[in-house]
Amino acid sequence: MAPPTPRLVVPIELKKKPWEQKLPLHNRWHPHIPYVAEVNTGEVFRIEMVDWTGGAIKDDNSAMDIKLVDLSITHYLSGPIRIVDSDGIAAKPGDLLAVEICNLGPLAGDEWGYTGIFDRENGGGFLTDHFPSAAKAIWYFEGIYAHSPQIPGVRFPGLTHPGIIGTAPSMELLNIWNERERLVEENGVKSLKLCEVLHSRPLANLPSTKGCHLGKIPKGTVEWEKIAKEAARTIPGRENGGNCDIKNLSRGSKIYLPVFVEGANLSTGDMHFSQGDGEISFCGAIEMSGFLELKCEIIRGGMREYLTPMGPTPLHVNPIFEIGPVEPRFSEWLVFEGISVDESGRQHFLDASVAYKRATLNAIDYLSKFGYSKEQAYILLSCCPCEGRISGIVDSPNACATLAIPTAIFDQDIRPKSSKVQLGPRLVKTPDVFKCTYDGNLPTTVNLSAAFHDSN
Amino acid sequence: MAPPTPRLVVPIELKKKPWEQKLPLHNRWHPHIPYVAEVNTGEVFRIEMVDWTGGAIKDDNSAMDIKLVDLSITHYLSGPIRIVDSDGIAAKPGDLLAVEICNLGPLAGDEWGYTGIFDRENGGGFLTDHFPSAAKAIWYFEGIYAHSPQIPGVRFPGLTHPGIIGTAPSMELLNIWNERERLVEENGVKSLKLCEVLHSRPLANLPSTKGCHLGKIPKGTVEWEKIAKEAARTIPGRENGGNCDIKNLSRGSKIYLPVFVEGANLSTGDMHFSQGDGEISFCGAIEMSGFLELKCEIIRGGMREYLTPMGPTPLHVNPIFEIGPVEPRFSEWLVFEGISVDESGRQHFLDASVAYKRATLNAIDYLSKFGYSKEQAYILLSCCPCEGRISGIVDSPNACATLAIPTAIFDQDIRPKSSKVQLGPRLVKTPDVFKCTYDGNLPTTVNLSAAFHDSN
Amino acid sequence: MAPPTPRLVVPIELKKKPWEQKLPLHNRWHPHIPYVAEVNTGEVFRIEMVDWTGGAIKDDNSAMDIKLVDLSITHYLSGPIRIVDSDGIAAKPGDLLAVEICNLGPLAGDEWGYTGIFDRENGGGFLTDHFPSAAKAIWYFEGIYAHSPQIPGVRFPGLTHPGIIGTAPSMELLNIWNERERLVEENGVKSLKLCEVLHSRPLANLPSTKGCHLGKIPKGTVEWEKIAKEAARTIPGRENGGNCDIKNLSRGSKIYLPVFVEGANLSTGDMHFSQGDGEISFCGAIEMSGFLELKCEIIRGGMREYLTPMGPTPLHVNPIFEIGPVEPRFSEWLVFEGISVDESGRQHFLDASVAYKRATLNAIDYLSKFGYSKEQAYILLSCCPCEGRISGIVDSPNACATLAIPTAIFDQDIRPKSSKVQLGPRLVKTPDVFKCTYDGNLPTTVNLSAAFHDSN
Amino acid sequence: MAPPTPRLVVPIELKKKPWEQKLPLHNRWHPHIPYVAEVNTGEVFRIEMVDWTGGAIKDDNSAMDIKLVDLSITHYLSGPIRIVDSDGIAAKPGDLLAVEICNLGPLAGDEWGYTGIFDRENGGGFLTDHFPSAAKAIWYFEGIYAHSPQIPGVRFPGLTHPGIIGTAPSMELLNIWNERERLVEENGVKSLKLCEVLHSRPLANLPSTKGCHLGKIPKGTVEWEKIAKEAARTIPGRENGGNCDIKNLSRGSKIYLPVFVEGANLSTGDMHFSQGDGEISFCGAIEMSGFLELKCEIIRGGMREYLTPMGPTPLHVNPIFEIGPVEPRFSEWLVFEGISVDESGRQHFLDASVAYKRATLNAIDYLSKFGYSKEQAYILLSCCPCEGRISGIVDSPNACATLAIPTAIFDQDIRPKSSKVQLGPRLVKTPDVFKCTYDGNLPTTVNLSAAFHDSN
Repeated sequence: MAPPTPRLVVPIELKKKPWEQKLPLHNRWHPHIPYVAEVNTGEVFRIEMVDWTGGAIKDDNSAMDIKLVDLSITHYLSGPIRIVDSDGIAAKPGDLLAVEICNLGPLAGDEWGYTGIFDRENGGGFLTDHFPSAAKAIWYFEGIYAHSPQIPGVRFPGLTHPGIIGTAPSMELLNIWNERERLVEENGVKSLKLCEVLHSRPLANLPSTKGCHLGKIPKGTVEWEKIAKEAARTIPGRENGGNCDIKNLSRGSKIYLPVFVEGANLSTGDMHFSQGDGEISFCGAIEMSGFLELKCEIIRGGMREYLTPMGPTPLHVNPIFEIGPVEPRFSEWLVFEGISVDESGRQHFLDASVAYKRATLNAIDYLSKFGYSKEQAYILLSCCPCEGRISGIVDSPNACATLAIPTAIFDQDIRPKSSKVQLGPRLVKTPDVFKCTYDGNLPTTVNLSAAFHDSN
Repeated sequence: MAPPTPRLVVPIELKKKPWEQKLPLHNRWHPHIPYVAEVNTGEVFRIEMVDWTGGAIKDDNSAMDIKLVDLSITHYLSGPIRIVDSDGIAAKPGDLLAVEICNLGPLAGDEWGYTGIFDRENGGGFLTDHFPSAAKAIWYFEGIYAHSPQIPGVRFPGLTHPGIIGTAPSMELLNIWNERERLVEENGVKSLKLCEVLHSRPLANLPSTKGCHLGKIPKGTVEWEKIAKEAARTIPGRENGGNCDIKNLSRGSKIYLPVFVEGANLSTGDMHFSQGDGEISFCGAIEMSGFLELKCEIIRGGMREYLTPMGPTPLHVNPIFEIGPVEPRFSEWLVFEGISVDESGRQHFLDASVAYKRATLNAIDYLSKFGYSKEQAYILLSCCPCEGRISGIVDSPNACATLAIPTAIFDQDIRPKSSKVQLGPRLVKTPDVFKCTYDGNLPTTVNLSAAFHDSN
Repeated sequence: MAPPTPRLVVPIELKKKPWEQKLPLHNRWHPHIPYVAEVNTGEVFRIEMVDWTGGAIKDDNSAMDIKLVDLSITHYLSGPIRIVDSDGIAAKPGDLLAVEICNLGPLAGDEWGYTGIFDRENGGGFLTDHFPSAAKAIWYFEGIYAHSPQIPGVRFPGLTHPGIIGTAPSMELLNIWNERERLVEENGVKSLKLCEVLHSRPLANLPSTKGCHLGKIPKGTVEWEKIAKEAARTIPGRENGGNCDIKNLSRGSKIYLPVFVEGANLSTGDMHFSQGDGEISFCGAIEMSGFLELKCEIIRGGMREYLTPMGPTPLHVNPIFEIGPVEPRFSEWLVFEGISVDESGRQHFLDASVAYKRATLNAIDYLSKFGYSKEQAYILLSCCPCEGRISGIVDSPNACATLAIPTAIFDQDIRPKSSKVQLGPRLVKTPDVFKCTYDGNLPTTVNLSAAFHDSN
Repeated sequence: MAPPTPRLVVPIELKKKPWEQKLPLHNRWHPHIPYVAEVNTGEVFRIEMVDWTGGAIKDDNSAMDIKLVDLSITHYLSGPIRIVDSDGIAAKPGDLLAVEICNLGPLAGDEWGYTGIFDRENGGGFLTDHFPSAAKAIWYFEGIYAHSPQIPGVRFPGLTHPGIIGTAPSMELLNIWNERERLVEENGVKSLKLCEVLHSRPLANLPSTKGCHLGKIPKGTVEWEKIAKEAARTIPGRENGGNCDIKNLSRGSKIYLPVFVEGANLSTGDMHFSQGDGEISFCGAIEMSGFLELKCEIIRGGMREYLTPMGPTPLHVNPIFEIGPVEPRFSEWLVFEGISVDESGRQHFLDASVAYKRATLNAIDYLSKFGYSKEQAYILLSCCPCEGRISGIVDSPNACATLAIPTAIFDQDIRPKSSKVQLGPRLVKTPDVFKCTYDGNLPTTVNLSAAFHDSN
């Protein structure tokens, strides 16, 4: 009989730094980062991974580590893995790599995670103009459930998934990325979209040698210097998959990734115990270390067969995903809506980002009526299994976005009732998430009707 | 025993025009449109409604009616309904009106609907630059299922819902709407968002006396003239609910609407047999006539208690929704992703609308590989129970949006496979939706990599 | 265009008696009951039906109608319907008739139902030795939801279905039925199963001219006399489908029925707004009048192709069912278990009926701790969407059966908690279901440990 | 911070025999089996377990191990575990022990399982008169999925659960068990239920010193002899939980067990990767080794508060279960029905076991039309996530039971179609499960209409 146990191809020792691991990690996308392991199609194999910071965020009582985190290290990935078929022939550019997630979870002995709000001047997030200060919540896992001492009264089953999974880009694709993102950064404030409403900065994350790790390539060599200067950052999702943060990619899911280099060079990391659609606080999932058990197939010539390029080159494609059959089953959802009118009352044209921003702000304020601080609510909506939908995108001038929260994650009934919200011990706002001060000078968004509302 | 049958408060005779109905319909929002019926809290009552055009679109073999439709008539609504409590006291501004959808469906004898693509110069839609020509598909209902002779091989259960349900605005709120939307229309092309990518026009739909119907107010009177000039169009969803197109608002759902005028003045219309998230082709749901059975409660002072204004005035609020427990159960989903890079390859900053546009384009092209014309696919994604999600909105510069399609609605397996897509009779592209020509001169978007792809 | 509205083939006038209807109803199975309508395969048609008693049970304040109900009238069915294919050729013995339930619901103007406990000497039920007295609860419908003034604190969405749907038996099959059921009745107490534990009587329901209705065949004719003497009662489900009481046969379901006579002669009745698995109180669903919209296909020779006879003749087959995709979605279930040890402590051998009896008794007693009378709980478990499962049937000597109740149907949290069950107004046992006295002399089952338990 | 990793309280070394483990296993229920570990309420702890045979069944090419298995060893359990509260006070008789299943799965390095059919004279099963020969299938796991080389074309996600979990009985309860089961064995054939239809033997499994293991109590001591003679076998589920085989008891479920002895003495074993309702082939789940992560709470006095004794003593109770929110999501089910008429055509009175037997026989024959051998189908229905329901239990004389199979587990469409079942390579009946001969003389049940059917 063939041994059915998944072969461990990327092991992690939790006490070691990312660059000290037996197979050193990398945190950039580049075709020349050498693969660290090879697997066959049809084989179930196991990849372990650190949390995205490689241990920089601690299970302690302060959010200072979040405030001061070095974002140049984002995100430590395990891999690349070279994929070959049963005849020993590697995946080739133009193929489609079908990756099935057979199993996944936290690493044994490390069953905890964290969710943070970044400081406005160091990372920011979707609502950074409303929440400029860093904050942190720790989550403990009891099997499928997560709970946080900093957010009492909430417990939910995780829909665990890798935040990042992708193939290596070719040089041609890498150049396309660097060029288009450089344009955003250079010309952004003047000509590009949403800058006035979404306050996150920087506009793009261009290659940087600072914090760069390239796996087996020794730091300081000529090769390292060259690659580090052109390797793409891992923050945005792109044509190769990458940081797509699709919260339903859990057990039983399948990912169809385009192959741009020989062997595919699959990398993965940024494991999330749970995440809400949008991952709104940026450090917004329940971040953790973890493992994946994967199985790959190669669909020869699959890019031509199944992916349509939508842009100037045949490389302008996106992966396809298949969602698995095992997800937490919720029956009741409370839904908050936002339209594309911003906090100043200004009308935007069919802008789903503005609409979703307003939906999330509505939900945060609503939850604050049930005893939660707004930071607790912001963190909760970042990481709990809530759904962010684009409901209407054609009814000019308003896009309509919705945020749906499963009511069963709360130990109180959070639906509107004819009676007032019940007063009592549940509504005491302690404990709270760990918070820092905001020491910068960037403007924050004031809710103009706060005066009305606080007089309640 | 109290008679449990829902009381019919707004009857519709299908052979009559909207303005000839016993309780004449209206197609504008204004506080002075008189209510046509009164209901008590706790009472189950029935409202019937015409399709949004009042019968202008026919079950025939041509899309000319779609191409030439008079959009000034959008949308015929039933109501307003005045809500009073068991003591006879009407809902008051500041209250929250909880509306439960007990039942709903097509009108007996009228079990069919249609989905259209508007002409680029008469309505447009989310992808109007790709699909400038008008088109139409007819759907027939067999109980919970819809099928279309123009889109063979597809059948799905409807998640029927009213596209529009809302309360009347106060004059103060109406003025806010008219002011902010006028600003978009006047200044839009220069300073507002997305105009270069989303080609729908006009930017906003300002009040117009053309096509205006105001219920019991006789056309041509001084009162009519005054109201018609200031009444808001029904196209966008706004603070009062309205055209929010939330596809899950079906049986058992509850809508918590803010009350702005005495009696609440609830109106509803635009029944959809089914709709995909986003309703992307604009005339994009399966549009039909129908009925609603509703039950209302008044939460006194509920706006202060539950809704947080997010804008300059206490009126800048949004409704809350509760989703019902009865929805079609799908187990497998195929998911298409889009990032905020447009068809020209240009990078946009965290723009969820661009990302969703690309996800929908990816899905349409994908389906075209299985024997569907792109127009069939565009219409299908507008009206089938697909989900549009904002998956990542913080990973600068790319927003990541996803479109998830339940695979069970097709009679073939549409997942990628190691073998090529099977050739054969299924792939013949006839029949097709009814199509018109596009006779205008506006530019369309060319897929720059089409040459590559068409050489397949 | 073909008119898509379902054709009404069996209309019901609610004010008329079953035998006064335009197409008179029947309440027996017999091949010679003439069909009353003919439909084509592929056609969506509508059948209306009375409640199973034809109006004998009233929406009033007494259970006397339940106590004294004439069970010889059971159950009034609409039909038979003859099915022919598009070439005009009727379904033939040996074919399989695929019946799709496109839509269904209560009749307009009659949106209410009832659930009863039969008197021990007139109908009985699964727990009749524990509950010998007749009782009744009235349910009102608010769209998909049912609630009863007699069972406060409970509300649930209905999974509406026809209790009875079946084809006419051939004479050969009818003779098999009459023969085997006569044997049970004659020899039952001595040699057959479960008689000592399940106290329902009679053991079988043999043909009787009393109460018999045969559709278009005039009462009192020679033909009527002959058929009435041999026509099978409609109480048990059999090879032709019939009273199978499968609670999930709702919208979108498909039933594959064997055809025994030319034309199939499909009949249906006994509409249930909702039912729990087992329908334990016998008059146990929420019984109502209603309508079905159906579509039929004929699978020629399908009995040989798909059904395996399991018995001495090729007629010993059972229908196959396909469950539809639209069911209420519950996330939490509380599960009660029973093993095949009866109330006297006696061990039975792998007896699933005994195990299920004990599971239902456990559940009823449990619910009585939350303020419900045992009769309320008995009725509730008969009609709410609870699931009865055979969990273990091989672990000698104990069968293990479970009853799972969705917790969301209650307005209180019914799960066990570390604190005692909360005392308070909820626990007052009024109102209650309407009850009668039991005036007979049959023994009832005493819970031997009641003394222990009542001292609580 | 408290270390969140589950504490391993019962470790298993796979290469050792059950009695050689660090904490030796036991396979009987008795109050005097000493506990091997102690845990606190609120603590998440980990128990590992061998498969029920302790390794007697191998991953090889023969079913001889199944045929000759020594059933006196059934089932090796891990524990007992003593439960104490945060004050160090142990659980006491009369309390309720709430056990939450936080996580569970196969042991690392042992990701496979097996399903067997026992020989008629060594174990039997629900359909042993139809399937007297031993057989075996091996299953391999790929994360959540199982597949078997012996049953091609089938793959399904496991709903993993412990077959056995229970508390130790008191001597009083143990005596009740032994007494009532001895009566069945002694008097069974003459006076008890179902014996003529269900052919499993023996009727009960009485205490036996053969194969007995009692944990820390040394074999051969006086104490061992005494306990071994009176300790209950683990085969049937009983008042203490035990072998209840409830297939939905997976992650997130909660079990409320009565406490009969100081400390509760919780034991568990018989892990199932997946099981169908009824576990019909007896060795019917996918049997494996595994681990559980559990968390306990004590509800003081909970037996009186929540459990109603249904029998002569206060000990005649059953556990309560709460089902978790994470289960595979299936949308389509094919349902087979059985009524209480046996294979000889004889009518039984409301006998759910007979009805379920016929439903399973119908399903097995049906699947055999799609290329499966009947043994493959029998094994598949034992272990796949199918649902066995008691649909009607009041319609004298027929009980109606149903077996629902999720269609998505097959790689072919198994629904009835107008065309005949497709011929072709899929229908080749190789490979097959491993089979043995039946060498005994007990009669088997012949399908009397087989002649008709085989002439197809």
